[in-house]
Amino acid sequence: SGELFLIAGPCVLESESHARGLADAIQRIASDLGVPYIFKASYDKANRTSIHSFRGPGLAEGCRILRAIAESNKLPVLTDIHTPEQCVAASDALGPVEAMLQIPAFLCRQTDLLIAAANTGRAINVKKGQFVAPWDIRHAVEKIRESGNQRVSLTERGASFGYNNLVVDMRGLPVMREFAPVVFDGTHSVQTPSGGKGVSGGQPEFIPVLARAAVAAGIDGVFLEVHDNPAEAKSDGANALHLNKLKGVLETLLAVHAAVR
Amino acid sequence: SGELFLIAGPCVLESESHARGLADAIQRIASDLGVPYIFKASYDKANRTSIHSFRGPGLAEGCRILRAIAESNKLPVLTDIHTPEQCVAASDALGPVEAMLQIPAFLCRQTDLLIAAANTGRAINVKKGQFVAPWDIRHAVEKIRESGNQRVSLTERGASFGYNNLVVDMRGLPVMREFAPVVFDGTHSVQTPSGGKGVSGGQPEFIPVLARAAVAAGIDGVFLEVHDNPAEAKSDGANALHLNKLKGVLETLLAVHAAVR
Amino acid sequence: SGELFLIAGPCVLESESHARGLADAIQRIASDLGVPYIFKASYDKANRTSIHSFRGPGLAEGCRILRAIAESNKLPVLTDIHTPEQCVAASDALGPVEAMLQIPAFLCRQTDLLIAAANTGRAINVKKGQFVAPWDIRHAVEKIRESGNQRVSLTERGASFGYNNLVVDMRGLPVMREFAPVVFDGTHSVQTPSGGKGVSGGQPEFIPVLARAAVAAGIDGVFLEVHDNPAEAKSDGANALHLNKLKGVLETLLAVHAAVR
Amino acid sequence: SGELFLIAGPCVLESESHARGLADAIQRIASDLGVPYIFKASYDKANRTSIHSFRGPGLAEGCRILRAIAESNKLPVLTDIHTPEQCVAASDALGPVEAMLQIPAFLCRQTDLLIAAANTGRAINVKKGQFVAPWDIRHAVEKIRESGNQRVSLTERGASFGYNNLVVDMRGLPVMREFAPVVFDGTHSVQTPSGGKGVSGGQPEFIPVLARAAVAAGIDGVFLEVHDNPAEAKSDGANALHLNKLKGVLETLLAVHAAVR
Repeated sequence: SGELFLIAGPCVLESESHARGLADAIQRIASDLGVPYIFKASYDKANRTSIHSFRGPGLAEGCRILRAIAESNKLPVLTDIHTPEQCVAASDALGPVEAMLQIPAFLCRQTDLLIAAANTGRAINVKKGQFVAPWDIRHAVEKIRESGNQRVSLTERGASFGYNNLVVDMRGLPVMREFAPVVFDGTHSVQTPSGGKGVSGGQPEFIPVLARAAVAAGIDGVFLEVHDNPAEAKSDGANALHLNKLKGVLETLLAVHAAVR
Repeated sequence: SGELFLIAGPCVLESESHARGLADAIQRIASDLGVPYIFKASYDKANRTSIHSFRGPGLAEGCRILRAIAESNKLPVLTDIHTPEQCVAASDALGPVEAMLQIPAFLCRQTDLLIAAANTGRAINVKKGQFVAPWDIRHAVEKIRESGNQRVSLTERGASFGYNNLVVDMRGLPVMREFAPVVFDGTHSVQTPSGGKGVSGGQPEFIPVLARAAVAAGIDGVFLEVHDNPAEAKSDGANALHLNKLKGVLETLLAVHAAVR
Repeated sequence: SGELFLIAGPCVLESESHARGLADAIQRIASDLGVPYIFKASYDKANRTSIHSFRGPGLAEGCRILRAIAESNKLPVLTDIHTPEQCVAASDALGPVEAMLQIPAFLCRQTDLLIAAANTGRAINVKKGQFVAPWDIRHAVEKIRESGNQRVSLTERGASFGYNNLVVDMRGLPVMREFAPVVFDGTHSVQTPSGGKGVSGGQPEFIPVLARAAVAAGIDGVFLEVHDNPAEAKSDGANALHLNKLKGVLETLLAVHAAVR
Repeated sequence: SGELFLIAGPCVLESESHARGLADAIQRIASDLGVPYIFKASYDKANRTSIHSFRGPGLAEGCRILRAIAESNKLPVLTDIHTPEQCVAASDALGPVEAMLQIPAFLCRQTDLLIAAANTGRAINVKKGQFVAPWDIRHAVEKIRESGNQRVSLTERGASFGYNNLVVDMRGLPVMREFAPVVFDGTHSVQTPSGGKGVSGGQPEFIPVLARAAVAAGIDGVFLEVHDNPAEAKSDGANALHLNKLKGVLETLLAVHAAVR
């Protein structure tokens, strides 16, 4: 296998300047380590536990920010989309920049969404649902490929393990790699999905543990939600990696990656 | 608690005459037993495992059939919707008939869908996701109620239990009844979600077992996908209840219901 | 299926007078309702979370108490055993009274224990391990039957569902009944196995819910740990049924049983 | 953390010459790679699915073989014990050689067994039960330490994940290391516990995947059941690592270990 790539950024676009600050900082770290980097951020958190949670700037403004960062920083970007209509709208708004569209985990079986995403011609990253076996995500890949789009990757972000907890089954990584390149999402995998109090919790102390394990098991890329101040993040701060830990984590992941390839 | 109601019909609308035949037959059985009855059928199976699976007649034709059956048989009807746009379109197409809109399990955290469904003013039935704890589905109820719609029910259809299997946690039924009336979906709960071969399997032999258990635990309604020829059903035949077993199953459920109320 | 029988008593023998008080009270309730009754109590809790927990009076004294109660009250009794050596010793100590030996759930695959229990000629009740699929407990039955003892029953007490939680899969009850009569343990099934603080917790509010569901699904007997003061019980008080609720629970279970047979 | 050690050998003692052959071969590989090595083999498989399965040579003959190998090869050895009585008998039979006693996973909560093992003064390796949360195995450690024996290690071998399947939660490894040194059992973790046909299956192709992941997550030792002809092994052949793959697997594990320490 080749180089390990990185998809990283804030969970949600909090503001253009905040997003830019993170993109700049992460890009610098990735560049220093020779890691190909894709900036990620969501324009809308469409399935927050509570109706009162912050959702983001919306599609139009969000894609404007993503495009601006992509152009200024010469970075590919990734954002998630939630309906067939959004696939077209987001792809149009992102314009000429290199952008991946991401299928959220809960939506990974929605045929129309997968087809609409595929039809944009963009690279598609499908998050494996918490309720989907590794061998069954093959069908999402096929829905995209049979729509004429061969650029698809899969992302592991944990499977339901009892209530309010996820487990990462490392056996699933090689299974999924039979179908497409595989990314490991180190931050959502440490979520403790809940809502008892209206928010999901997290165990960020396990991000490096699971990311090291996944790289050792064998993957193509790492997905990390990174924030410069997780305690104040407007979404998913409970499971974000602090920016000041990113460099150390990546250095170890690269060493592990070198050991197994 | 009051009477046990029944939501039943084919998984998907295969044809108007087929749907009518089932509606007539089920209505007769329910009427004989004094069970309030809501006819259910989907106009589109939006998350089939394979892109090649039959999906149904689509929203316009499907809602036309549902409305025609509702009007001729004087029955309330239920159908599921998958995007905010479909909520408006389906509700408009169903017109003056009494109709429930159903939120599919995978989509039960999609805020915009819940709000759009709520805004139709129709009664909303939310299927609890296979990845959601009983206490956490409260948030779906709140998203609907805070949108100004108080008519919401919840449906249990099993929780992820390892791969390709679901388990029904009967403790969840009273937990969910704290939030809203609770329906037990006896047919999807016996699904063995898969896709290894491109279709989900099922264990219809356990439908009566789980339905009896759920009624004994305490619920308000039962949801059953019923077919006159499951082996030839165009969707989910593997876990459908055969029409010729419906009367016997309902009689036992009514006896159990009488024993516990 | 025939009558529903009851296995009930304190988790552990706290004292002879305490055990007698419970046996008398439960026997009276069971007799009033026409329910065949087996008194249960453990002489030793051999797998308490903490080394400091109360374990009971030991085999000799415990079996003396059980035998005395069996003789005075003309009741069959049940107790659990933990090693092959204990099978012989306990059976000898129980003497001529009708007594069932119970294989604890964690030990349900220990071949020597099953054979030694079988060789006593006593009726054997095997608790299904939290880690055993319903179809796999068939092997425990076979180990006993192939040792020449045909009197074996199986007890469901929940399966591991993530950490520190159990779920009862009602589908398992008819599966296990293919092998032997099936008992539902309503009190251990609501345990929240833990040890974070050195004790297991419980959810006694779900005992009636799960017991009703299991009887409706179809079982032969019910197992309930009953205590007159759960808050002060020396073992498993967190998931015991209060004695003053037993009659009401049994009345409902009998009504459900009548509805399904 | 220090060097990675290896516990390896056949599941069960098939014969002295067979055990010697494996011990010699594994010792040579470990020595070449500078890996501290402990020879493991069971004298009795006490919880085989079927009563008809091969169980081993028994305690006396098994311990004789283990002691002979320990003395001739100057190797520490490990074997499992199943009752308090066996702890004393096995420890006596092993005599002056350095030997670890292992608590089987199903028995990890049996207080008397833990105490009896502790009282031998031998190093004790506790396998974490498939039904035990990582934080709860602390109690097994405490039962041993409070008995006056400080030499205890813990082994991860997977947690129940639905029926007939295990999952390794890599988050558990650092949690358990708070209590004691942690070993990862790469072969039992790929078992598919069953018995449908009277034997457990396995997925040996995932042994290197999980072992790499566990070493990357951070552990102290690796446990591997190794056989020169898994297809003909008398126990657990379905999940054994073929001897001819051991060197390659270990080389990668050492590289990963170097990358993370």
